[in-house]
Amino acid sequence: MGSDLGASAARIAADVEALTGERYTLSGPGITRYAYTDVYAATLDYFRAAFEAIGFAVWSDPVGTLVASNVAPGERAFGMGSHCDSNRNGGRWDGTLGVVSALEACRIAGDSLPLRVIAFLEEEASGFGQMLLGSRIVLGTVSDEELASYRDEHGVPFLEAAAQAGYRPDERARAGEVLDGLVGWIELHIEQGRVLQDTGARLGVVDAIAGYVHADVTVRGRADHAGATPMDFRSDAGLTAAEVVVALERIVRSHSPDTVGTVGALTLHPGIINVIPGRAEMTLDIRSVSGDHDKVYAALGAYLVGRADARGVAIDRRVRNRVPSTPMDAHVVEALERAAQISGAPWRRMPSGAAHDTQMVARRVPSAMLFVPCRDGISHTPEESADPADAALGVQVMLAAARELLAD
Amino acid sequence: MGSDLGASAARIAADVEALTGERYTLSGPGITRYAYTDVYAATLDYFRAAFEAIGFAVWSDPVGTLVASNVAPGERAFGMGSHCDSNRNGGRWDGTLGVVSALEACRIAGDSLPLRVIAFLEEEASGFGQMLLGSRIVLGTVSDEELASYRDEHGVPFLEAAAQAGYRPDERARAGEVLDGLVGWIELHIEQGRVLQDTGARLGVVDAIAGYVHADVTVRGRADHAGATPMDFRSDAGLTAAEVVVALERIVRSHSPDTVGTVGALTLHPGIINVIPGRAEMTLDIRSVSGDHDKVYAALGAYLVGRADARGVAIDRRVRNRVPSTPMDAHVVEALERAAQISGAPWRRMPSGAAHDTQMVARRVPSAMLFVPCRDGISHTPEESADPADAALGVQVMLAAARELLAD
Repeated sequence: MGSDLGASAARIAADVEALTGERYTLSGPGITRYAYTDVYAATLDYFRAAFEAIGFAVWSDPVGTLVASNVAPGERAFGMGSHCDSNRNGGRWDGTLGVVSALEACRIAGDSLPLRVIAFLEEEASGFGQMLLGSRIVLGTVSDEELASYRDEHGVPFLEAAAQAGYRPDERARAGEVLDGLVGWIELHIEQGRVLQDTGARLGVVDAIAGYVHADVTVRGRADHAGATPMDFRSDAGLTAAEVVVALERIVRSHSPDTVGTVGALTLHPGIINVIPGRAEMTLDIRSVSGDHDKVYAALGAYLVGRADARGVAIDRRVRNRVPSTPMDAHVVEALERAAQISGAPWRRMPSGAAHDTQMVARRVPSAMLFVPCRDGISHTPEESADPADAALGVQVMLAAARELLAD
Repeated sequence: MGSDLGASAARIAADVEALTGERYTLSGPGITRYAYTDVYAATLDYFRAAFEAIGFAVWSDPVGTLVASNVAPGERAFGMGSHCDSNRNGGRWDGTLGVVSALEACRIAGDSLPLRVIAFLEEEASGFGQMLLGSRIVLGTVSDEELASYRDEHGVPFLEAAAQAGYRPDERARAGEVLDGLVGWIELHIEQGRVLQDTGARLGVVDAIAGYVHADVTVRGRADHAGATPMDFRSDAGLTAAEVVVALERIVRSHSPDTVGTVGALTLHPGIINVIPGRAEMTLDIRSVSGDHDKVYAALGAYLVGRADARGVAIDRRVRNRVPSTPMDAHVVEALERAAQISGAPWRRMPSGAAHDTQMVARRVPSAMLFVPCRDGISHTPEESADPADAALGVQVMLAAARELLAD
């Protein structure tokens, strides 16, 4: 591995630091950056300039996915990248590090390898409420009807926002072209968990990405006076929702240990200290590599039916999004493992509990991911922290794997 | 009982209906009316005009409590009344019916009995977040420090709002004079539960008002990625809060059957589908006639300590308000019972689970309450419904009891 790792880490650190500037985020010190905002456009401009500075051509797909390459569109190349949107008041590393690392790989490789970098948009759902939206559009898995229904917090439809930003969303059927000719794909990303830190590894070769169900549950009971309504006369939507939260954990723990389940949002109505909640709305996020997330969702459904009867409430649930678990390509995984082994750094093979654009890319291109540690597993907050030296190491490993796979 | 009950019910219905007009509420069709708003002032003006029309004098205490009487301030009289503020988007009957019924009692009694009507302000906590605020000020149980800290939703301090409305809150030490000379007090109110409806009774003679603890609980965990954080690595503030909601019901049910406990508000932060809640904030409303609400609050405290340990979270709680349970005066209760029995209508003796201004009045004046049914026990919502004929019957019973007690 010929290049200077320290200098590489410094360039990565400088890029990440630059993108925390106020031109690039709606909030501070946390990062808030989503599609079609001025700060998102400025971020794309930053990458455009950086790629053009090393002689790469830069273009966009019809919805604003950024592409940079040292060969022509559609030609044989190895793909790298991630996303550069953030969740609201999130960290500086999530996604952005993957694009920065791909840029660094291009800086190091120059014209020695045919490379294509892709920065997907709206991975985090922070602009239009839909995770992996950019990569799902590229893969053509979002129906016209669904896409027409997505709006930002101001009610602006996604398609209108895309057009206003200068893109041509009506030509989105062509978005998939950004993957044409790719012989492989690697996304470098912070782990967002504590496995690497706790095991002393600097790199994680991801062999599968967990699938997930995202759903919304609504409990409808009866809003009664908190003082005048004896316990046996209640239809307490909030209490029922709390039982569901507790039951979700119990059901998740009775399935395979890679399964996780979370209620991230829960709202009670009317939400007043002395009124029994008449309605509760909650989100479900259930994931697994094994596929058990679907079993958990089904088991929870049976539980909901029982509680609705027992509590005298109505419970509805609706799937917002369902993505199957995604095994990574064995050849790409093994190439990464060989390169990691040669690097001499401690590494491990592991699944990804978090969702990533690579889940979508893997449907068309042999793909894998490379994780670097983030401090204490903390992510999606301003406290998110990672070591650019790990990313510089990762860039070397990615390049070695790409070189091997391009040579096949 | 000499007067025409049908005509009395019609007058009560007309008054209640009139006060649903847009001059008297910030919302529609639900009622939103709290102290020092224009709609509250208009409501006081409505009662002022109605009392003056039957020859009663009308005045205010230093914070805006409305008083009407056919004898001079401080003279021997029997007291009746309630409050005429509402919760937000509440019903037309809660509180207002008690003032309207007292007005109707005065119409019927004329000068035959010395009567004083009081309409307390801010019973519902909808303006300044403090239940029974007006009656607590009258009883002198609110410290200067506490009162100075109360603000409305726009940040306007209570004392400033009172002064702007033309009152003299700096003279509030004299507010207690409105109770001087009262030989007894009866508040007519809708039940806000289903006991009367379910037992076919038209009147409830209240022999005790439940005490309560209002408190806030904050759970602090760690906001982690919902996908990348295995179940054993979590400090999920939302899950812990849900356990507290479920535990509250269990603890309440293990105490005396008059005990109730409610979590009316629960907020998760950051409140995003794919982030484990790092912080949860919830309210507690625990009540009983027996005094068991204090035992429940203590038992819940022990539970919180255990869960904080088990879940790796910090849990803080803070009492917002604590009011002991209040037995009603035996003589007033018995006078009401005799009058109810003579009326021939079905009635029952019962406790009040809800808090009422009479809890405070009872500290200085022999007091009781008279409940009338409300449909399905529904209260604090626009669907709140009651029968003016029950209130007209209640007015007759109140007057008979007052007549007997004044004759003692």
